[in-house]
Amino acid sequence: MLDLAIIGGGPAGLTAGLYATRGGLDNVTMFEKGMPGGQITQSSEIENYPGVTGEITGMDLMIPWPEQCQKFGLKHAMVEVLRVEHKADGTFTIHKGDGTTEDSLAVMVCTGSTPKRVGFSGEDEFFGRGVSTCATCDGFFYKGKEVAVIGGGDTAIEEAFYLSKICKKVYLVHRRDTFRAAPNTVERLKNTENIELVLNSSPAEVYGDKMGVTGLKVTTPEGERDIPVPGVFTFVGNDINNQVLKNEDGSFICDVNDWGEIIVDLKMKTSTPGLYAGGDMRLDAPKQVVSAAGDGAVAGIQAIGYIDERLNG
Amino acid sequence: MLDLAIIGGGPAGLTAGLYATRGGLDNVTMFEKGMPGGQITQSSEIENYPGVTGEITGMDLMIPWPEQCQKFGLKHAMVEVLRVEHKADGTFTIHKGDGTTEDSLAVMVCTGSTPKRVGFSGEDEFFGRGVSTCATCDGFFYKGKEVAVIGGGDTAIEEAFYLSKICKKVYLVHRRDTFRAAPNTVERLKNTENIELVLNSSPAEVYGDKMGVTGLKVTTPEGERDIPVPGVFTFVGNDINNQVLKNEDGSFICDVNDWGEIIVDLKMKTSTPGLYAGGDMRLDAPKQVVSAAGDGAVAGIQAIGYIDERLNG
Repeated sequence: MLDLAIIGGGPAGLTAGLYATRGGLDNVTMFEKGMPGGQITQSSEIENYPGVTGEITGMDLMIPWPEQCQKFGLKHAMVEVLRVEHKADGTFTIHKGDGTTEDSLAVMVCTGSTPKRVGFSGEDEFFGRGVSTCATCDGFFYKGKEVAVIGGGDTAIEEAFYLSKICKKVYLVHRRDTFRAAPNTVERLKNTENIELVLNSSPAEVYGDKMGVTGLKVTTPEGERDIPVPGVFTFVGNDINNQVLKNEDGSFICDVNDWGEIIVDLKMKTSTPGLYAGGDMRLDAPKQVVSAAGDGAVAGIQAIGYIDERLNG
Repeated sequence: MLDLAIIGGGPAGLTAGLYATRGGLDNVTMFEKGMPGGQITQSSEIENYPGVTGEITGMDLMIPWPEQCQKFGLKHAMVEVLRVEHKADGTFTIHKGDGTTEDSLAVMVCTGSTPKRVGFSGEDEFFGRGVSTCATCDGFFYKGKEVAVIGGGDTAIEEAFYLSKICKKVYLVHRRDTFRAAPNTVERLKNTENIELVLNSSPAEVYGDKMGVTGLKVTTPEGERDIPVPGVFTFVGNDINNQVLKNEDGSFICDVNDWGEIIVDLKMKTSTPGLYAGGDMRLDAPKQVVSAAGDGAVAGIQAIGYIDERLNG
């Protein structure tokens, strides 16, 4: 029986492992089928992780983490997790992709979320080199420059506002000519001088060179339009990777909201005792490495107290 | 008029400044009368800040932060803040120790908390070199060794349990012979094999050498007792540094709980629009550098959206 099973090997999972093992739990396994590090390892530059400076990639940032976090005894199981079962006695069973199972007293789930791809030509090729899904992370790299935003939902509008404070101009490419956002938000959008709405339009192709993106071709009602920008931000939805928390009947083992985000409190407790969540998959996640790591720290500490009380309380 | 006033220059304040300025706010000032860095700069060793490894002190950890966080335009005002006034129009006035004031659209408060000192001989001299107020931070340095815990409240008992998983033995020195904790918690305490209760007793002196603590002298009903431990953890309460949020009549400008901790949600919003809190002074704070920095990131991002909506909404 494990003390703590950590599902996911990004910043939240690694930090939960660090705190749980350093705090005295002997039997902690992090399940991550790939290399630990998480989504940030795809970023070509990161400058907002406090304390780590210089020109570094997301991969550079994450390189020391696994060793640091495994120094105190955290084990890494390179296997996929299919689902987490919450049993009648309050413990959990981890169902793995290789057909075997493992039991655990507590579980920390931090499998992140996956920004949806729009599906235009060049989107994957230039991802991390001019195509981004995170304005907070990458907006600053386009300070004083022009960028395009793809999408028309609430997040796309929020991120367009965010980018409009940093960038010279923001082209908002939306496939409809109306927005679902609140009327005063739409009014504000229309009144923001450096946001140009490109409506009834869809991106056809992002192009560039070895250095990155140099422009975007958009299909508009008036024909193809060329928008020569070095940055393209796509916000067309987010898949929360919550499949591991689904029972076989499709219900979840803890409370989630309408978007599938895991509902947690400030201690990263879910509605199910002994089950913690953190990182990009949780409610109100800022989707930043340092915040995910902060979630992991508190979840690790909480799990220690929970297990101690369960075993000895 | 400032966009954002940050009160306090620890990990939460610095990171809030990094995110707010990098996100496009032009006019952000961090008020910190001393050197930025926070309480952690008093620690002689830190090994649980993810991504920063090697044998480093808390001071080493924090050295790169101010430059990194000020690179994007964060200003540092080396002045004490007496109080933050929330005005009828929803903006704030910062009352400074030099008698001047400054107005701000939004405020992030992160002035931390101060663990109370017990008052025994050597406590200050050996602080950070064997005397600690944080089991999560420093417990691991005493793995397999014996330590003493001073205090008998809920936190002292929790931390004694935490240390009992890591250390060979924990002496719990409590000035009474009863505990206010729940009966089953007290039962568990008495049943934990490697916790020895030293009741009706108070610490008289911690002693040691240049390397740090080597023992503790305790006044017991049977006379003085020598407990030769390298680590002494004190948990006799915590002063939340919330004075800056007090109105002149003693009421607070936002909701606080019975312990004076600032009530926040997952976005670090307080009950007062435009006022954010984070780090050790907030509700359910894990009191870890990485978590405080995570708080700062989300507060910085939130402040940007709040200000934009207030100015243009």
